[in-house]
Amino acid sequence: MPNTPDILLLQLFFIFVWAKLFGEVFERLSLPAVVGEILAGILLGPYATKFITPSDTLRSIAEVGAIFLLFSVGLETRPKELLSVGRESLRVAIAGVALPFALGFAYMLLRHHPTPEAIFVAAAMVATSVGVTARVLGDMDVLQTRSARIILGAAVFDDILGLLVLALVTGLVSVGGVKWWALVLLIVEAITFAIFMIFLAPRIIGRIRPAVSRMSTRNAPLILALAICLGLSVAAEKIGMAAIIGAFFAGLAFAEYSPEWDLQRRVNGITEFLTPYFFFVMGARLNLQVFTGDIIFAAVMVSLLAIFSKIVGCGLPLWREGREIALRVGVGMTPRGEVGLIVALVGLQMKILSDAAYGIVIFMTGVTTLVAPPVLRYLYRRKTPQPVAAD
Amino acid sequence: MPNTPDILLLQLFFIFVWAKLFGEVFERLSLPAVVGEILAGILLGPYATKFITPSDTLRSIAEVGAIFLLFSVGLETRPKELLSVGRESLRVAIAGVALPFALGFAYMLLRHHPTPEAIFVAAAMVATSVGVTARVLGDMDVLQTRSARIILGAAVFDDILGLLVLALVTGLVSVGGVKWWALVLLIVEAITFAIFMIFLAPRIIGRIRPAVSRMSTRNAPLILALAICLGLSVAAEKIGMAAIIGAFFAGLAFAEYSPEWDLQRRVNGITEFLTPYFFFVMGARLNLQVFTGDIIFAAVMVSLLAIFSKIVGCGLPLWREGREIALRVGVGMTPRGEVGLIVALVGLQMKILSDAAYGIVIFMTGVTTLVAPPVLRYLYRRKTPQPVAAD
Repeated sequence: MPNTPDILLLQLFFIFVWAKLFGEVFERLSLPAVVGEILAGILLGPYATKFITPSDTLRSIAEVGAIFLLFSVGLETRPKELLSVGRESLRVAIAGVALPFALGFAYMLLRHHPTPEAIFVAAAMVATSVGVTARVLGDMDVLQTRSARIILGAAVFDDILGLLVLALVTGLVSVGGVKWWALVLLIVEAITFAIFMIFLAPRIIGRIRPAVSRMSTRNAPLILALAICLGLSVAAEKIGMAAIIGAFFAGLAFAEYSPEWDLQRRVNGITEFLTPYFFFVMGARLNLQVFTGDIIFAAVMVSLLAIFSKIVGCGLPLWREGREIALRVGVGMTPRGEVGLIVALVGLQMKILSDAAYGIVIFMTGVTTLVAPPVLRYLYRRKTPQPVAAD
Repeated sequence: MPNTPDILLLQLFFIFVWAKLFGEVFERLSLPAVVGEILAGILLGPYATKFITPSDTLRSIAEVGAIFLLFSVGLETRPKELLSVGRESLRVAIAGVALPFALGFAYMLLRHHPTPEAIFVAAAMVATSVGVTARVLGDMDVLQTRSARIILGAAVFDDILGLLVLALVTGLVSVGGVKWWALVLLIVEAITFAIFMIFLAPRIIGRIRPAVSRMSTRNAPLILALAICLGLSVAAEKIGMAAIIGAFFAGLAFAEYSPEWDLQRRVNGITEFLTPYFFFVMGARLNLQVFTGDIIFAAVMVSLLAIFSKIVGCGLPLWREGREIALRVGVGMTPRGEVGLIVALVGLQMKILSDAAYGIVIFMTGVTTLVAPPVLRYLYRRKTPQPVAAD
């Protein structure tokens, strides 16, 4: 289809309805909506029915959608709450980041993929999408159990650690090859940036809060937040990281003031409008022909490693608390959801992920996201949940 | 600048901050922000400093912004409230639509502009942007006076009548020439559509409301509203009207359920994000070189006619109530603001407005929007406002 405004509007309408329809059907089948929206893109995309080939404009809109998706995730992440959920969550998150990365990286190298590609597939295995798990736990009314609170706390650390890994990875790849001084510099840079955004940025916002409320512009806090989100996205890209990393940390910085300024609901409108295009375009990019016997095998292996490494990595630090809690937390941390996709998007933007490796990441994202909810339901159903603080 | 995603992101950031900065400066000077955001576009655009030439993608984003701007206007328009503000508002609105259109059309024909262009300039003179006036009245704390309530009521009718005029105009121009049967058919079509959206659509939404709340998709009402907004925009375009007309009536249909479903605030997030691009792009499209002596004269004349026709058209039906009220209402209905721009956008999209006529419309929009607030402040300051229902 040619890219005139009229066609664009028609596509925006059609994709929105089509993606949301698949999401709704998936939800009714107790499956995560995100997988349905990706499937919607795969089915209509240029590699299946060839119904819609995303234009440059549509891809740009999808990428702006990814930025607001991560901004929303950041807004929902209260740095202050991290300090209260304690050490268990942090230990779970660290082990749950390190093990998947190590196993994924080693496996992809063994398969003779180029090092940058191996790094990106490994990075996509790191991230936890807490949305899917939180939904299941909420539906089962077990959000107050100890395991659920560890999961939610760990997932928050996990987002930050995962984005730090992505920042390192993109930085490394743009520097070109692993040099020790560059790696050290990058780690220092990324951690400094994270600490600044988590601890100092909210204070700065607190300082300028009176000035913001004196501004004549309508909705000044929202305007400020949007400007900072766009600005940090540009800045992150300028220093060689992904734009979405900037957006996530911008969200973190505003998280504390989000209730007061009613940011979450307003940004939520933007996110609900734009993210279906992100999921659809990511699905449409999947070349189904890459799934030869060899790549299917690799995709299954990577998926198994992704599940195994999260269950072991997140479960092990909790082993003393009993197999029940360890398993629940491990399975709860398994779904990669949209965060895996975000890493894949960055890999594609940097032209590092081949079609085959992209196929592996999408497959792994889909499998981990689909498998976790039923297992989680089973694990929590085995014992009637106690109202508070027990499993 | 080339149109890569990175450049787009940089432009999105830069334009957003730049436009909002101008908006803030204008607000501080007690001038309407919308004029500042347009000026921001004029200054950086290809006809002045040539700093940013909007790409196709940016223009598409601006047009999506226009759709959501009108959707928001529709959401804020409660059809039920129209029935309570009574006949005065309706009479004010009808006279305030007919006179500017007639005078504008006649003047442009006298100047030997082509008939379709004359129709579009006249249509741009019809619409009232109540936002600017409402802001002034709110700041002066006189929203409860009788004249203020007539203005706000008339402005609501005015939006609907103005959009009907635009629907007729776009329909006529796409049919190609004024044929009596086509005109009658169009009027019937447009009025049927308006009646359906104002009276029947809310009932249908009320009927499916239980089904919507049973849906598994998160934020199902918002998703439904966005889908209908996009769908009616596409549909309006398909039958030869402007997309934004569909968006406006979609907003009208949901207006009644907006508080229950918290639609306004969520859609507001999208509008706040996207409309600066609309204003900026509209400003950037203004070719300053068209302002030769002749066109400046025409622009001044059209602006004077636009002011005179609203003051007389809206004031005359209230003459019996005293010059004070008549004048206040007439001046309050004068600013064209974003609604004039929307008509200009449609004219550009249909390739009917020449650069010169576009310049005239932008000039008229700017003048009417800038002139009204100070005069309005003067008129309301002359007499201390009474708390309720008196002027």
